Amino acid sequence: MWHKAPMPPFIFISLLLLTACSQSPAPKSVEETNPELNALLDASLNSDYTYDKLGELCDTIGPRLTGSPQMKKAIEWSMNSMREAGFDSVWTEPVVVPYWTRGQEWARCTAPVEFDLILSGLGLSDGTGPEGIEAEVLAVRDFEELEARADEVPGKIVLFNPPWQGYSKTVQYRVHGASKAARHGAVAALVRSVTGNSLGAPHTGMMHYAEDAPRIPTAALTVEDAGRLHRMCQRGLKPVVKLYMEAQNHEDTISYNVVGDIRGSQWPEEIVLVGGHLDSWDVGTCAQDDGAGVALSLGAAQMILKQELRPLRTVRVVHFTCEEMGGHGGRAYLEAHRFELENHVFALESDAGSYTPLGFSVDADSLVIEHITELAAPLARIAPGSWKIRQGGSGVDIGPIVRSGVPGAGHWVDTTHYFDVHHSLADTFEKIDPDLLARNVAVIAGLIFAVADEPVSLRTLTDSNADGGH
Amino acid sequence: MWHKAPMPPFIFISLLLLTACSQSPAPKSVEETNPELNALLDASLNSDYTYDKLGELCDTIGPRLTGSPQMKKAIEWSMNSMREAGFDSVWTEPVVVPYWTRGQEWARCTAPVEFDLILSGLGLSDGTGPEGIEAEVLAVRDFEELEARADEVPGKIVLFNPPWQGYSKTVQYRVHGASKAARHGAVAALVRSVTGNSLGAPHTGMMHYAEDAPRIPTAALTVEDAGRLHRMCQRGLKPVVKLYMEAQNHEDTISYNVVGDIRGSQWPEEIVLVGGHLDSWDVGTCAQDDGAGVALSLGAAQMILKQELRPLRTVRVVHFTCEEMGGHGGRAYLEAHRFELENHVFALESDAGSYTPLGFSVDADSLVIEHITELAAPLARIAPGSWKIRQGGSGVDIGPIVRSGVPGAGHWVDTTHYFDVHHSLADTFEKIDPDLLARNVAVIAGLIFAVADEPVSLRTLTDSNADGGH
Repeated sequence: MWHKAPMPPFIFISLLLLTACSQSPAPKSVEETNPELNALLDASLNSDYTYDKLGELCDTIGPRLTGSPQMKKAIEWSMNSMREAGFDSVWTEPVVVPYWTRGQEWARCTAPVEFDLILSGLGLSDGTGPEGIEAEVLAVRDFEELEARADEVPGKIVLFNPPWQGYSKTVQYRVHGASKAARHGAVAALVRSVTGNSLGAPHTGMMHYAEDAPRIPTAALTVEDAGRLHRMCQRGLKPVVKLYMEAQNHEDTISYNVVGDIRGSQWPEEIVLVGGHLDSWDVGTCAQDDGAGVALSLGAAQMILKQELRPLRTVRVVHFTCEEMGGHGGRAYLEAHRFELENHVFALESDAGSYTPLGFSVDADSLVIEHITELAAPLARIAPGSWKIRQGGSGVDIGPIVRSGVPGAGHWVDTTHYFDVHHSLADTFEKIDPDLLARNVAVIAGLIFAVADEPVSLRTLTDSNADGGH
Repeated sequence: MWHKAPMPPFIFISLLLLTACSQSPAPKSVEETNPELNALLDASLNSDYTYDKLGELCDTIGPRLTGSPQMKKAIEWSMNSMREAGFDSVWTEPVVVPYWTRGQEWARCTAPVEFDLILSGLGLSDGTGPEGIEAEVLAVRDFEELEARADEVPGKIVLFNPPWQGYSKTVQYRVHGASKAARHGAVAALVRSVTGNSLGAPHTGMMHYAEDAPRIPTAALTVEDAGRLHRMCQRGLKPVVKLYMEAQNHEDTISYNVVGDIRGSQWPEEIVLVGGHLDSWDVGTCAQDDGAGVALSLGAAQMILKQELRPLRTVRVVHFTCEEMGGHGGRAYLEAHRFELENHVFALESDAGSYTPLGFSVDADSLVIEHITELAAPLARIAPGSWKIRQGGSGVDIGPIVRSGVPGAGHWVDTTHYFDVHHSLADTFEKIDPDLLARNVAVIAGLIFAVADEPVSLRTLTDSNADGGH
C-alpha cells in the first residue's frame, strides 16, 4: 500500500535530489534533460518510422484475432521490429487465452420482405448449429422494454436497437443482451452495432454469457439493418429472420505477450513500461484499435534509441495479447512480474487510437499527477491549446498492475471519431493521419523519456518508504 | 424555339394579367394566392405523410433495381399511393430498359497475404465467367499513370485508386476505367468507390463499355481495400487478386414510368411536372437516391390535394424508371409527350437527397429565373439564411424535356454528405431527417403550387408568341 502523504512534493524532490547526488554518475537535472527532450520531440515529429511500421502491420499482416495465424505473424513481427530497432532484450511470455473462431455467418430477413442482413457475430458467441435459427423478431429499444414485454419473448429472436449514448452506456446491450434475452426464452439475440455513426458496416466485440442463462447465439447488425427491422416491427409486419453462424468456442490455447527492454543506464532494474495490445478483432485491419498503440509504443522507444539517449531507468515496451477477448495478456503480465512489481515506476498504455493528442489521463495519486504535469510541460507545444494532464483511467492491459500500485496513465486523444471505426471493417490504415501519428509518437516518447530519465522515482512520491528512492 | 426577349417582365405580366382577366373564372392574383401558399407551407411542415411513405417504400419494398421484382412492387406502390392520395388520373407508360443482374460476386487477395475484399460489381459490367479471373494487380492513381505504365498492363487487373475530387471528376474512373484499362490489355478493372467519406461500404454505379475496347469485368472496391492494395503495390508486394462476378447483361425488358395528374381548374392541358426516379441501385434501400425525390414529389402533390387547393394548371407527378441505368425513363417521357410538350409549363426534379434545402437550380432563361425568384420568395422562410434561386442544371430525368425547351429546375440541397451514402448500402431510411424532409416537401409543394396557380405561364415569358399565353 502506498502512503498518501500530504507533504508538498518539493520537500521530497529536494531530499531525493540530495540522495541522488551522492551517487555516480550524477543523474541529470530537469534543465539538463530538456534539450534532449526537445530534440526527441522534434525528431519524433520528423520521423516516418512509426507510420511505416503501422502500415506494415495493418497492410501486410492484417487483423490479429487471438489465436489466429495472423496474430502469430504479428508476434513475430513485433519481436523482429524491436530487435531491428536495437532493443537490448526481446522475449515473449506465454498467456493462456480463449480460442474462438467465427467461421461462416449470414442472416436474412425471410418474411414478409426478403433481404440479406449484414452482421458480425460477437466474440465468444456460440454458433447456431448447421440448421441455423429462424424465428420472428421482437425488437426492443432497451432492457426496460425487454422486461416489460417479457411474455412476448419465448421463441423469438430479440433485437436490441438502443440509441447511441456513448460507448460505455451502449455497449451493455452487446455484452449482456444475449443472456438477458435468453432468460426470457429468446432463441437468439441481435444487437445494433455499438457506434454513433454508421455507413453500413457492422461492429463486432466481445459478449459474455451469464452462468444462469441459456447460451444463445448473438451477433451485431448494422445500424441500418437494425433500424429497418425495428421499424418493420413497429409497422406490425412481424419480420422473420434466419440466422446462421458457425462461431465456435474451442479449448483454451497459448498466445504471447511480447516484451522488449532498453536497459537503463543507472537503475536498470527500475522499469518504465509503455504498450498497447497486439491482438485485435478479425475485421478491417485494426489500425486504430490497437495497431496505433502497438506502433506508437514501438515508435516512441525507437526514437529514444535513434536519438542515442540512454535513460537512467529501463524503458520496457509490452505488446499485450488477448485484450479484446477479456484482457488476459494484462493479467498474465501482472502474474509474471509480481517479483519486480515495485520496480515498475510507471506504466503508459495507448489504446484509444491515434487522433488529436489531448494529454494523458493518469490513474494515480494527486502528487504523482502533479509531478507528471511538471515533467510533461514541455510536451504541451505538440498539442497547442488542448494539452492537459488529468486524473482518470489508464488502460485495460496495464489495469492489473496499476490496480496493484503502479502509477499508470492512458494516452488521451480526441475520440470523437474512434467509435465510427472501432471493431469494424472501417478500422484500416487510411484512418491514420500521419501528422497526428507523429505528434502522438512525440508525446509518448517525450513522457516515457522524461519519467525514465528523471532522478525522482514516481514510486517514492507517495511511498511511506520515501527514503528508499534515489 | 423560344425568343429570348430583352423586354422587362413587368410589361409581359401586365399584358398577361389583362388577357387573363378577360377569362372566367378570374385567375387569382399573387396577393390572393399567398395566404393559400402560406397555409400549404405550414401544413407541409406539420405533416408526416411523406416521411411515412418514404419509410414504407424503403423498409417494406427495399432497393429497386430496374427490372427487379422490387421495382415492379415499387411501381404498384407508386400507383396505389397516388390513387389513395386522390389524384384525378394515374397511369403507367412503358419504357424499354436494359436488364442487368448482379448475381453472386466476391473477390479475394490470394497472395502474398490472403484476405477477402469487399466489392460491388458495377452496373452493366459483364461477369468473369464461372472460373473467375485471377491476376496480379497494377494500381494507378489516375489515367495519366495508366498511360505512362501502359506496358505493364497486359494480363493485369488494373486498380484505379484516385483521390476524391468531388463526384463529377472522380466518377470518370468508375465509368470509363474498364475500357481504358482493357485497351492496354487488362483482364479486369477495379475502382476505388466514388465517395469522399468511407466507413467500409463499397459504392456501385453505372459503367460504360467503349465500342473499341474489349469488355472486361469491373467492380468497385471499398476505399479501405483499394488503399490497402495500392499500398501493397507501392511496397513492391505484387498483390494477386481473384475476382468472381456472375454479373450478366440480359435482353432489354419493359419497365414503366408512373404518371399521376391533379387536373388543373382553369387550364388543365397545361402541365407543371414534378418528379424523381423510382428505380435505384440494388444496395441499401436507396432512401436518398432517389426514394427522397419520389416521396417528396408524391408528398408535395398530396399536400396540395389535402389542402383542397385546385391550381389553375395540372400538377403532374412522374416517377421515372431506369434513371440509374442510363436515363431511359426520362427519354421515354419526352418521346411519349412530344405532342403536348409546349403545354409543359415547368418541370421540377428532386434527385440529390433530402438534405438542408438551399433553393432551386433553374435551367432556363434569365427572365424565367427572375420570375421564379419572385414566385418562390415566400418559400425563403423555410430555409432561413441559405435560400437562393440560382441558374444551373435541373435533373437527369427531366433533362430531355428541358433540353427541348421546357423550363426546368432541380431541387437544390446541401449535398455535403450525399456521396457518403450514394449508391451504397449506407443509403437507408435512417439517413432521412424528418424535419428536413418536411421542409423539402414544403418548398417543393410551394413552388409547384405557385407556378401551377399563377396567371402567367413561364412558357410565355420568353416566347416569341407571348400573346399565346393567358
